[in-house]
Order: sequence, then structure tokens, then C-alpha cells
Amino acid sequence: MRCTRCGTKAVYHSLYSGHNFCVKCFLKNVDHRVKTAINKHKLFDTKDRILIAISGGKDSQVLATILSKIEKKFPNVTLMALLIDEGVPGYRDFGLKRSKELCKELGIPLTVTSFKELFGYSLPEITSIAEKKEVMLGACTFCGILRRRAMNIKAKELNATKVATGHNLDDEAQTVLMNLLRGDVLRLLRLGPKPVEELPGFVPRVKPLRYIPEKEITLYAYFKGYPLYEVECPYVRTSMRDEIRFILNEIEKKHPGTKYAIVRAADKLSTMNTSFKVHVDTCKYCGEPTSRSICRACELLEALGVMT
Amino acid sequence: MRCTRCGTKAVYHSLYSGHNFCVKCFLKNVDHRVKTAINKHKLFDTKDRILIAISGGKDSQVLATILSKIEKKFPNVTLMALLIDEGVPGYRDFGLKRSKELCKELGIPLTVTSFKELFGYSLPEITSIAEKKEVMLGACTFCGILRRRAMNIKAKELNATKVATGHNLDDEAQTVLMNLLRGDVLRLLRLGPKPVEELPGFVPRVKPLRYIPEKEITLYAYFKGYPLYEVECPYVRTSMRDEIRFILNEIEKKHPGTKYAIVRAADKLSTMNTSFKVHVDTCKYCGEPTSRSICRACELLEALGVMT
Repeated sequence: MRCTRCGTKAVYHSLYSGHNFCVKCFLKNVDHRVKTAINKHKLFDTKDRILIAISGGKDSQVLATILSKIEKKFPNVTLMALLIDEGVPGYRDFGLKRSKELCKELGIPLTVTSFKELFGYSLPEITSIAEKKEVMLGACTFCGILRRRAMNIKAKELNATKVATGHNLDDEAQTVLMNLLRGDVLRLLRLGPKPVEELPGFVPRVKPLRYIPEKEITLYAYFKGYPLYEVECPYVRTSMRDEIRFILNEIEKKHPGTKYAIVRAADKLSTMNTSFKVHVDTCKYCGEPTSRSICRACELLEALGVMT
Repeated sequence: MRCTRCGTKAVYHSLYSGHNFCVKCFLKNVDHRVKTAINKHKLFDTKDRILIAISGGKDSQVLATILSKIEKKFPNVTLMALLIDEGVPGYRDFGLKRSKELCKELGIPLTVTSFKELFGYSLPEITSIAEKKEVMLGACTFCGILRRRAMNIKAKELNATKVATGHNLDDEAQTVLMNLLRGDVLRLLRLGPKPVEELPGFVPRVKPLRYIPEKEITLYAYFKGYPLYEVECPYVRTSMRDEIRFILNEIEKKHPGTKYAIVRAADKLSTMNTSFKVHVDTCKYCGEPTSRSICRACELLEALGVMT
């Protein structure tokens, strides 16, 4: 098997494009596709202060690497990284060490924060209070809401103009499918490559790896010699995403290109989103932007009786 | 288990609504939900000439039965039925016999036509010509295109103002999901309960059973004492729908209400369809409406060299 680009020994065959790649051409090709997505969807401005959501996992390692390469050509862009520790024992140890190492290597200043620091309680503390108070919500619901809130608080503190997350094609296709299966059309229409509208108080989130399959992110990290040790979150089995991941992988095997087709469909749907304007207010407790009088994060913390 | 409505012995537990039903209340409830869908989405006018696409299978038997009940209250509505024989040996024998029987019972005039009569060739003849000519399209593609064309031709001949088909909730949810997996946004936006726009030359198709799960259609037919003998089409295994059916049934088991959520999502998406106007032209060969200069049916027949 020879590389379709340069003719040297190929190490990867892309089923959906039909191309073979050697290591060098593969890395170049992924870089190129990320750049293309950034340009096509105008994810960044030349003066952006970009906060990378980093975990030390493969996705955020690859994201930081590619963005730091691109940044070199844009002297007025600033890169920063943020790691959020949910306080699940052992879960972030490796990722934190690896994030510090990689950020140092790439010259990206890293900020570390935690649920405990921002909200007064770690995720396990919150879920155990929820159990006692019989608040019937899964750990992933708490974690998602608080993580997004933490990201926005710290992004504003750091004067970031964009938050970049490492969501890959698989993550995005799963999310689209989950929203359809739940009949959540509003969310389905908001799953474009970047926010359709600017909302006051929200630092816009963008996903530069949105069109790169998870498998290729893993390979990229592997070829770069990055550690691929991923600690699985102990709560992950409680989520519906796991089922959908399995189903989508099965379909993709038989019909290569399906994940990409789903995400492109979401892109198109998001351009029709003009009629769905969101009303943005300010949470009466924390002052963060919300579509209601009390934001979801404060509502949860209040229900648990742990408002700080 | 007692009927939630009347307290007599229940025979069916609806997982997604949590209600129990006796036979009588179950039949009434399905009738009521079909009527509600017809009213809510204004599927029919009080002067419609409705052509029911009948096959003799459970869906079309139930559709004809419920529509003939409803029609009694609308003296200016006319019901007719159409059976299309694709010419697959043995496949329509039972359905034709049963359709004649049921239509006689319900007092609905039945018209029978065939691919052979309308296009000069049966489906097996067409697929074997396609194989020889190396036209790489599945039998289901030919059949779908020609069946829709046959329906429209006969609907116009019979001065029908609506065509009603027996698609149930499972069929509809499968179609929505298939279109998402294929990234076909245009089709996804056209999957509402009825056509968004009137297209010249097309008799509008409506689906009154769209919100009734397949299982409940089967039960309805069973409780009515209708024969449930279904001959499986010999070509069915070649279609992607079978995979999707299996997947959706698995998800529905774990998350009751998913099929309904998907179809309701399609309903909402279809209301956003205003910006996607279709250009309608007339096929230069057959004169039927099409978005191109030659319609899909004539294009296929021409590719096979069997244009009449």
C-alpha cells in the first residue's frame, strides 16, 4: 500500500475518501482539513484570544497542537488553555500532568480550575447530595451544565474571545443523532460549526475538529508520539451517548461516510436557524447569561441546597 | 390489568403512554388519534376525493377501515382505493384477494393496475433488464419510483384530490432517520404530515396513520379479525431500511417514545421548509410533473431501453 500523495509506504487507508497516507502526508492532511474548516466557517478572527478547553486526552492534545501550528502565522492571535477538574478522584491526574507538559512544550499558558473552586463542591460531592435530596438527575447532567458554566466564567476572566473545544466528528454525529432521537429540534438546529448568533455574556464556542473522525484524531496523536492513556470517567456508563456511539460505529462500518453525512446535515440545518432567536437574560443569583430568570447551574445548586 | 378507560379486562399496555386498554377502548383510541391527526394537520377537505393506496396488508386494511368510518360523517367526501401490482410472482395474490374482499365490505370502489399495464414491464422484468444493461440500481429504487408514478397517474385518471397511504409511525421514523444518515436535508425537511406546497400535476399524498406505531396497527387489524398474512417482498433484504428498523426497535425498547419523538421532530422541521421551493417542470416524454426535464421514471426506463 503506497501513499496516494507521495508514493512512499502508506500506513493508513481512509475508507470514506479511498486515499492511502504515509505518516507525514496523513498529519499534513488532517492539519489541512482543520484549517479548511476554520476558514470555511470563519471560526476565528485574526485578533482572537482563543481559550482551548484542554483535558490531556487525545482530542484536546491534537487540538492544541494544530491550533498552535496555525497560530504561528497569525501574530495577533493569543492562545490560552483551560483545564477544569471535576474532582472525581484519580480521573484528572494523568490529564493534568499531560496538559501541563504539552502546554509548556507548545508555549501555551495553562489555567487550572475546579468545580470545588468555582462552585464549592466537587462532582462526587454534588451527586451524593443529589442522591440524598432525591434530585433525580444523572452525574452527566450536572457535569455538563457546570462544565459549560465554568468554561464561560473562566473565559471571561481571561478576556478570551473564543472557546475552542476538541469535539470530533464522532462526538458531533452522536450529538446530532441523540437530539433527533429525543425530538429536540431546537438543539438540532443549533448544532452548526459555530454559534449562529452572538449572545451577550457568552464567549462563543467553536469546534475546529468537528469534521475529523475520532479514529483519525487517535492516529494523529499516536503518530505524534503522544500518550494515549485515557482514564474513563466512572460515570460514563450512565449516559445514552454510549449506546448511540455503538450504533453509529456499526452503521459507519457498513456505510462509510455516514457520520460525516450526519454532521453536514446539521451544518445545513443550522443555517436555517434564523427564526429561532434566543432571549438572553441575566441570572438573578450569579449574573451569568441565561434564557430564564435563574440559570440552570444555579437552579441545580439551589435544588441541592449548596448555593454559595 | 384493567382498562384505564372503562375498568374492564385490559388486553394491551401502551408503554409510552402508560395506559391499559380493553379491545373496544383500544380500537376507539386508535380511531380517535387518527381523527386528531387528520384535524390537526388538516389532511383532508370536506369535498375531497380520496384515493387509498391499498395492498391488502395490515396498514392499508386499517387505513381503509378507519377512513370509511370517518367518511360516514362527511357526505361530500368520496373514497376510492387503488392496488398496484408490481408483477412479482405470488407477492400480490393474497393482498389482491383481501383488498377486493375488504373494499366490497366497506363499499369502496377498487381499481387495480400494474407496472406491466402502465409501463409495459413487470418489476422482475425491469430488474433483469437492468442487470443485463449493468444499471446498478436496487429493485427497491425502481419499485419506489414507478409505484409513486403509477399512483399519480391513476389518481389523476380517477380525479382524486388526495392520495392516502398507510405509512405508520415506524415507517416514518425509519425514513426520517435514513435521510439524516444519508445527510439528505432537503428530503428531511419534506417529511412533514402533508406536502408543504401544492405542486402542479401532483396529487398530494397524506399519511393518516403517521402517528400510530406499527405494533398498534397490527393489534388493530388482529382485534378486527383481519387476516395478518403478509407475504414478504423477495427484494426486501436488499434495502437499508431493514437495518434501521432493527436499530430503531432496539432504541425504542430502552427509550419508549423515541419513534414518536423522531416523527414529531420531522413535523417541526417541515414547518421551516418555506425557503426550499421546488421548481416544477413537465417531463418531455410522459408529461408528468418533475423538477428536471426528464422525470426519474422515464430516465430509468430510458436507461434500460424499455421506454414505451
